[in-house]
Amino acid sequence: MLGIHGMSASGNCYKVRLLLEQLGQPYAWHEVDVLGGATRAPAFLSMNPCGQVPVLEYAPGQYLPESGAILCYLAAGTPFWPDERLARAATLRWMFFEQYSHEPYVAVARYICHFLPAGHPRRAELPRLHERGNEALRVMERHLAGNDWFAADRYTIADIALFAYTQAAADGGFDLGGYPAVSRWLGRVRAQPRWITMPSR
Amino acid sequence: MLGIHGMSASGNCYKVRLLLEQLGQPYAWHEVDVLGGATRAPAFLSMNPCGQVPVLEYAPGQYLPESGAILCYLAAGTPFWPDERLARAATLRWMFFEQYSHEPYVAVARYICHFLPAGHPRRAELPRLHERGNEALRVMERHLAGNDWFAADRYTIADIALFAYTQAAADGGFDLGGYPAVSRWLGRVRAQPRWITMPSR
Repeated sequence: MLGIHGMSASGNCYKVRLLLEQLGQPYAWHEVDVLGGATRAPAFLSMNPCGQVPVLEYAPGQYLPESGAILCYLAAGTPFWPDERLARAATLRWMFFEQYSHEPYVAVARYICHFLPAGHPRRAELPRLHERGNEALRVMERHLAGNDWFAADRYTIADIALFAYTQAAADGGFDLGGYPAVSRWLGRVRAQPRWITMPSR
Repeated sequence: MLGIHGMSASGNCYKVRLLLEQLGQPYAWHEVDVLGGATRAPAFLSMNPCGQVPVLEYAPGQYLPESGAILCYLAAGTPFWPDERLARAATLRWMFFEQYSHEPYVAVARYICHFLPAGHPRRAELPRLHERGNEALRVMERHLAGNDWFAADRYTIADIALFAYTQAAADGGFDLGGYPAVSRWLGRVRAQPRWITMPSR
């Protein structure tokens, strides 16, 4: 059986769990105490030298890190990752956008506001994180004003990748009130079969 | 004919040009004056609302941004992006690693040291960029100590993605002397057929 080494309240880990649930694919979940430092322990670093969750154990003792790569691996041959060349590239385009232009701001702001103690010095990073995170949300809003989904005119792993931290953006101090098309898209994702919630903690 | 809107001295753009040369695929190069602000102009933002190069014009007036997605699009059906499910995911794993854990440090340090005036206030970012960039280089070194290539036991778009800014790391103040396996791998990439240099400016 597939194994996932992850932290339930991590958006990157939730992406993988949501896809597995929607695929109806059995898996074993191994909770990792990220906030307690478990990803810095040698046992974890031997699975992923970057010290990040999630890690997919696709065969006993065989590991694949990087949520984007895991989503592609699991969705191969399913409608969640289109086969057609351009649709496939468009899906990846939004997944790379998420990891480069969205997650480093929207997810990190959530981490600082939601998981660190009030008054933590990293709160000084928030103005820049909000500025860059709002840039990403504006790019999403513009796309979703004319499209129901991010790629291939249907629900794909690009939507899963972008949904995770966007739906939790308020935890990082973002106001989604100014992004009506994003808000409607969040509702369309939540209405997908076998959708599950992301734990807040 | 395919078009590339890019900046010659950008590593993200060089990745695309290197692959096109190695594929023997004709293309038209459209130089974008990034340092002069051209990516913030409405004409450019209509191609890529993120305001980043490169952008692939795969058909007249049809655009695909994100270097990682462009590499996958161009390499589809070629040996540069394996078809086999696990090899494909392993290739993507290193491409996501590059965009999330390598480029934001190694490329940004190069930008600050190499393109901004001496004494620019952004030099204050360098200690953190060097710390995180060296973490990425250590992950690469560990992998390359036991493997000639990043994925699929052969030269793929994962190597192209990681080569671009790694070979220019010294421009950002990194010392590759402590990474012998990385240095040997750089040599193997340079020895590939139809390899081209990346312009320094």
